[in-house]
Amino acid sequence: MRTTRSGERLQESARQVEALLERHRVLEQLAQRQEGPKKDLLEALSHRQNLAELAARLRGLHPADLALILEALPAEDRRLVWTQLQPNQAAQVLAEVSESVRAFVLGCSDVDALRAVVREMDRDDLAWLADSLPRGLREEVYHSLSEQDRSWIASQAIWPEGSVGHLMTGETLTVREDESVGGAAAELRAHKTLPHQADALFVVDSRNVLRGVLPLRELLLHPPETAIGEVMNADPVVLEPHEPAHEASQAFERYGLVAAPVVDDRGKLLGRVSVDAVVDFIRRHSELAALKRAGLSGEEDLFAPARESARNRWVWLSVNLVTAFVASRVIGLFEETIQGLVALATLMPIVASVGGNTGNQTVALMIRGLALDQVTRGNIPHLVRKELSVALLNGVVFGSIVGLAASLLYGSYALGGVMAMAVLLNLLVASVVAVGVPIVLHRSGRDPAQGASVLLTFTTDSMGFFIFLGLARAFLI
Amino acid sequence: MRTTRSGERLQESARQVEALLERHRVLEQLAQRQEGPKKDLLEALSHRQNLAELAARLRGLHPADLALILEALPAEDRRLVWTQLQPNQAAQVLAEVSESVRAFVLGCSDVDALRAVVREMDRDDLAWLADSLPRGLREEVYHSLSEQDRSWIASQAIWPEGSVGHLMTGETLTVREDESVGGAAAELRAHKTLPHQADALFVVDSRNVLRGVLPLRELLLHPPETAIGEVMNADPVVLEPHEPAHEASQAFERYGLVAAPVVDDRGKLLGRVSVDAVVDFIRRHSELAALKRAGLSGEEDLFAPARESARNRWVWLSVNLVTAFVASRVIGLFEETIQGLVALATLMPIVASVGGNTGNQTVALMIRGLALDQVTRGNIPHLVRKELSVALLNGVVFGSIVGLAASLLYGSYALGGVMAMAVLLNLLVASVVAVGVPIVLHRSGRDPAQGASVLLTFTTDSMGFFIFLGLARAFLI
Repeated sequence: MRTTRSGERLQESARQVEALLERHRVLEQLAQRQEGPKKDLLEALSHRQNLAELAARLRGLHPADLALILEALPAEDRRLVWTQLQPNQAAQVLAEVSESVRAFVLGCSDVDALRAVVREMDRDDLAWLADSLPRGLREEVYHSLSEQDRSWIASQAIWPEGSVGHLMTGETLTVREDESVGGAAAELRAHKTLPHQADALFVVDSRNVLRGVLPLRELLLHPPETAIGEVMNADPVVLEPHEPAHEASQAFERYGLVAAPVVDDRGKLLGRVSVDAVVDFIRRHSELAALKRAGLSGEEDLFAPARESARNRWVWLSVNLVTAFVASRVIGLFEETIQGLVALATLMPIVASVGGNTGNQTVALMIRGLALDQVTRGNIPHLVRKELSVALLNGVVFGSIVGLAASLLYGSYALGGVMAMAVLLNLLVASVVAVGVPIVLHRSGRDPAQGASVLLTFTTDSMGFFIFLGLARAFLI
Repeated sequence: MRTTRSGERLQESARQVEALLERHRVLEQLAQRQEGPKKDLLEALSHRQNLAELAARLRGLHPADLALILEALPAEDRRLVWTQLQPNQAAQVLAEVSESVRAFVLGCSDVDALRAVVREMDRDDLAWLADSLPRGLREEVYHSLSEQDRSWIASQAIWPEGSVGHLMTGETLTVREDESVGGAAAELRAHKTLPHQADALFVVDSRNVLRGVLPLRELLLHPPETAIGEVMNADPVVLEPHEPAHEASQAFERYGLVAAPVVDDRGKLLGRVSVDAVVDFIRRHSELAALKRAGLSGEEDLFAPARESARNRWVWLSVNLVTAFVASRVIGLFEETIQGLVALATLMPIVASVGGNTGNQTVALMIRGLALDQVTRGNIPHLVRKELSVALLNGVVFGSIVGLAASLLYGSYALGGVMAMAVLLNLLVASVVAVGVPIVLHRSGRDPAQGASVLLTFTTDSMGFFIFLGLARAFLI
């Protein structure tokens, strides 16, 4: 039995694929450099052999590993690896890769190759990927489907990304309440295979209304003659398709679920969400949150073309530019004061920076608290009081340090005092804004991760400059 | 059948608990205000009745929901709710709450109450929580355990947090290769219950070496006389206890696992990791990463006492102060230049800010790429070239905008030109640093999420000031 660690196995595969690609590149370059007659048979053979070796190596890999390898390759290599994949591998890889890589590989496939790939897909993957396919092919595929599959895909299309419906699969196994454990087991045996991660049968009545859930293990633990109604779980956790996916993921986490039934508003069984879709969602969601915090809206790919990446960052750059300009105009109000004491220009970024950084810590805690439903109407005053106390404490301690350093540096106790007071006041401002802004964004249905940091830094910069230079004008000049 | 959405159910419970706590507080205040004889029986009764109602409401809640409610309560209420829990609930809640809440509730329980709670724990939870218990109680519990449980706990203690061993449970069901499907099913029936999320039996030989994995469903799908060796999966994904937990979580995600066996280096079965431990790990890990990025080292609790929170933020504040001071000294080098043209002081934060923000976008992409193993030795030059191109493109576009704005504002094309050039150069610096720093931190075994942003902002601030003021001294004064 193999006991290679899963992580190492993937890295080893990636290394081998990269080595083959490297060899391929060298051969290509050689071929290009050489003139007509010298491009001899031997070389073409070695080139083709290398490609065959690559294809063989790729055939042995898990689709999820292939997807990861594709993500990490530059455009030219990615195209080469993609074209060497078997249609059934390609179909699974297509479902696993990120949106931008999917767009890329679809863009560099011809219709015939794509048709072969699409034929290998199950209806869940088809529903998931339908929008990405070229229009002509999409319609062609659509007409070749059974009535049932077609209506499933149509019904799937109405659930937006981030909803339970979007994570749902239609592959469910159902039984009736009045069947026996033995009868259900016999039916399963007749099926031969079970859907992936189906750990339970769903018990429905004649109108397809969900009555309960029967974990497969119960079929093993109870004598064949037991009625299913007696051993099923009649109070399972149930999802609805319009529920936000993150609520479903919290339910999976809280109650340790492997799969959960999805029902419509009349309680009829629609499908099933399994834990692998949830794990996938949680990871993508947390990655996206990290990117959003840095102002990247979509799923930007590390290897996207430079021009696309540049455009992707324009919105944020523009927002940043506007806020920086406003903060800069605040300084502009005090140019005379600075003219009178240039040290102010040197010291002012410290006041702004300390406020922004401590405020961002509070924002990070608030975003987590909001995501975990820990922030309630009742405890907000408590939170504000607490963060103000923290800011007061830290403002006194660090304000004194900064003030002392400034006095020693410029030989002026008055300047030190102004500096200390400005740091303290800016920390107080930062704490109130850092608690308030995420709450306001959350209440107005926006994502606090996306906007809170910008708004906070904007406030702490502008207010930091204003407080420091204002105090300086009042007390120093 | 109930079909309340899981998220709503939790919020409803939380609201009810809060209402009861509010009533409790009002009654307490009334009791305190009133003098001796007026504290009459009736009031004490209503008070006691309220507590009983609270305890009854709490008894109906899932431990995971209770944990969430505890996390969101201020200290006094948290203490009250905790003391109203049944010992078996309290035992499960203790395993679910965050470290800081755990420390809090343990701190406000007396030894007798704790002993009752600890008696309800299984050995996995005991191993997990042993370090948090008061020393005396820990030893008392330890001596009351069976030899087997004691050695399990001792063996668990050696696996550090963040390793597979830390997520592992010892609850496994094993069979031999030469048994039949029917025999294994009969054994299971004799067991009556199965461990949580056990979706497979582990097949071992007489020396307890893992030979394969037999999904429970196979017991249902195959005739009783089939040999287990024929239907088991002889090439399952296997974990080792010293593997990093995040590699295991990637394997669960990639291969859609529900549970995976853990073996030692000789292939002997040690235990099992189930998907709920993995989901829990992924969520905690991504939350911690977000906090780390803001410079919060540990699991800071939103409701921790102000003094503790303040201290928690000192390391980061100190680091921030040092970097801000260094950047400020860079400005100090150019005080004469600023004296000559105060507009420089007004404009310089824009140069620093634009560099810092775009650099942080690249850092966010790099951190994700490193976490997903997408960044390899081979593609780093490609990444650097790409980010430099993005910076060049955006530097030209946004540098021109900023430069034009500055020229119009101060009526000086020379000042505008210096501004444009400084923005372009600082974006180029930011792109190289943003690609390089996360890679260096990752290679040296550190967490890029924790350090990369500080180092980046430090560089873009200092270099932004240096480039802008340096160019100004050369061309404007």
